[in-house]
Amino acid sequence: MKPHSEGHPARSTGGTLIQDAPFAFECGATLPGLRIAYETWGGLNAAGDNAVLVIHALTGDAHAASGGGPEGARPGWWEGLIGPGKGLDPATHFIVCANLVGGCYGTAGPSDLNPATGKPYGPDFPVVTTRDMARAQKILLDHLGVRGLALILGGSLGAMVTWEFIVEYPGFARAAVPMAGGPSTSPWAVAFDAVARQAILGDPGWEGGRYVGPGPVNGLALARQLAMTTYRTDRLFQSRFGRDREDADPARSLDPENLFQVERYLRHQGEKLVNRFDARTYLALTTAMDLHEVARGRGGIEAALSAIDAKVLCVGIDTDALFPAREMREAAALLLDMGKNATYAEIASPFGHDAFLVEYDQLGPLVAAVLGRATP
Amino acid sequence: MKPHSEGHPARSTGGTLIQDAPFAFECGATLPGLRIAYETWGGLNAAGDNAVLVIHALTGDAHAASGGGPEGARPGWWEGLIGPGKGLDPATHFIVCANLVGGCYGTAGPSDLNPATGKPYGPDFPVVTTRDMARAQKILLDHLGVRGLALILGGSLGAMVTWEFIVEYPGFARAAVPMAGGPSTSPWAVAFDAVARQAILGDPGWEGGRYVGPGPVNGLALARQLAMTTYRTDRLFQSRFGRDREDADPARSLDPENLFQVERYLRHQGEKLVNRFDARTYLALTTAMDLHEVARGRGGIEAALSAIDAKVLCVGIDTDALFPAREMREAAALLLDMGKNATYAEIASPFGHDAFLVEYDQLGPLVAAVLGRATP
Repeated sequence: MKPHSEGHPARSTGGTLIQDAPFAFECGATLPGLRIAYETWGGLNAAGDNAVLVIHALTGDAHAASGGGPEGARPGWWEGLIGPGKGLDPATHFIVCANLVGGCYGTAGPSDLNPATGKPYGPDFPVVTTRDMARAQKILLDHLGVRGLALILGGSLGAMVTWEFIVEYPGFARAAVPMAGGPSTSPWAVAFDAVARQAILGDPGWEGGRYVGPGPVNGLALARQLAMTTYRTDRLFQSRFGRDREDADPARSLDPENLFQVERYLRHQGEKLVNRFDARTYLALTTAMDLHEVARGRGGIEAALSAIDAKVLCVGIDTDALFPAREMREAAALLLDMGKNATYAEIASPFGHDAFLVEYDQLGPLVAAVLGRATP
Repeated sequence: MKPHSEGHPARSTGGTLIQDAPFAFECGATLPGLRIAYETWGGLNAAGDNAVLVIHALTGDAHAASGGGPEGARPGWWEGLIGPGKGLDPATHFIVCANLVGGCYGTAGPSDLNPATGKPYGPDFPVVTTRDMARAQKILLDHLGVRGLALILGGSLGAMVTWEFIVEYPGFARAAVPMAGGPSTSPWAVAFDAVARQAILGDPGWEGGRYVGPGPVNGLALARQLAMTTYRTDRLFQSRFGRDREDADPARSLDPENLFQVERYLRHQGEKLVNRFDARTYLALTTAMDLHEVARGRGGIEAALSAIDAKVLCVGIDTDALFPAREMREAAALLLDMGKNATYAEIASPFGHDAFLVEYDQLGPLVAAVLGRATP
């Protein structure tokens, strides 16, 4: 196997790395090779150290912004943060984003065909961890000729992989901005994920994870609706939907078929995800989030964090119901106690957990400042 | 039809009222009669005005405490608040608690057999509202000879029915203590309920709501697990479960079969509910919660609340993730703005929404004070 659909790394705007060396997962399983889909923006400097690694969240992909990769003009999931004059500027930095291991957007994951059976891997795909994800990102960076990261950053799952990366590869990243995701996942977040996974596993369309058609669409939609609720806030739902119904006619106020607008919105979100995402990956990545714990196998949390030499800006969101700001404050406090270069910043937003995908007016200047640039 | 299994109202310790007059639901449907299961503690005075009406929450029943009704010694769901020397004392008050309309603990509900079909009503049972529930409670009080309530109180759904009662029957209750449930339900709470209902409706065991056997046990268990998570808090889960697993062996740290203790706890909660509750009632009562809105058909919220002449103590819980304390504070503020006799008290608790079932050291004195008694 060899790289395909990509140019010279320093000029690439994305493609797929086909790594033909065995990839050993943390769980002990090994795949003979690894496929990693990625996109890039801007150019790598001669020293190979002006790179910024962007890590996506649960349902994200490598297309963080327009301009990178084969999708060209389509806006990406971090469009407000990446681009000329924005928090991350391709004029000065070589920005990289790859689909995470376990994903369904081009990188190896459980919806791939298992050559041994000719069917999708499903549960036979190795258990993926945020550590595996960090290691795959490093393989890609090495392939691209990156010798140092000016910054690594991400929100939620992206924050978790950021933590793993800076612990696993000290000396490689000069700065890190984990947002709304700490060094380990709380049992509160595990609880919501566990319920969501049961919805998928309980759907007759699951078929042991080896379905070929649409799969457990109802279970996945339900999981998404639950997740979307926890990603937002009561205040936001109140201001956006109130108690409005599809049909405002008072004569239909007690008709259960007359959905609340908030229900309608959530169902729409569920349908949207079902049309673009694979339930096996949803299962694998939420499992990775729940297993996320930088302390694992490293002699405890302080021993793990002691490896960090990046400047860490922990970003909390004041209204985050899923990963409370307190967790990010505590992570920063612990790093400071340990003598690390850490700071804490809090995003004020009605959007809750999803604020890291919304509040660009606050995120842009924070990120630019970490890179030593003027506020965009 | 006539009353059975009960003694003289003033001495009754519970039974079942079989009301043979037609009961007209708010939705327009009518049942030819109504069955109401209830329990009582203490005795009604000659004036018939020392009664306290306790309203249960979503999965509660008439057995609020031991000593009342046929179940005698078994502790009830509000055991810490009701009893000699407690917040509600049978020595001075005639305490009444009835299973709500739509329930599955003796009162008429959708798991009853529909005489027209010989099968359970399921979706053919009238849509139930908190207003219907309040009306049924009033029928019971009239039957028991109660001429005035010293207090009406409840948490969550119990609070919602409390609001409806004091709006619908001004002059009947002298005081009200709605806890963790306001004059209308927020779209945030609706969202979680809507997801839970889809889990039940999507379970193949649902069978259109007309199942005779165990029914949609997986869907109901999932609904319960989700609800239990929202009833608690991230801090509580952190202190109680942390990231502990069923098997602490590090060699099994990446084994998905090795459940987190929080998952195990939630599954246990789901199984427990499935063994004691009917999914049709779960659907009916969560729908009633979502439809809860005292303003409906009354010309708006202020017009509705203007009827209130009870002294209202709104109780919020500082960590409630489902019905934020803010909602209770705002309800009290609105009543005060309208010149009503209202106060606000906040329970400090790590338990979140469920604090009203736990924090008796705080609730007891609050409730006793409203009744003009010394702190128990």
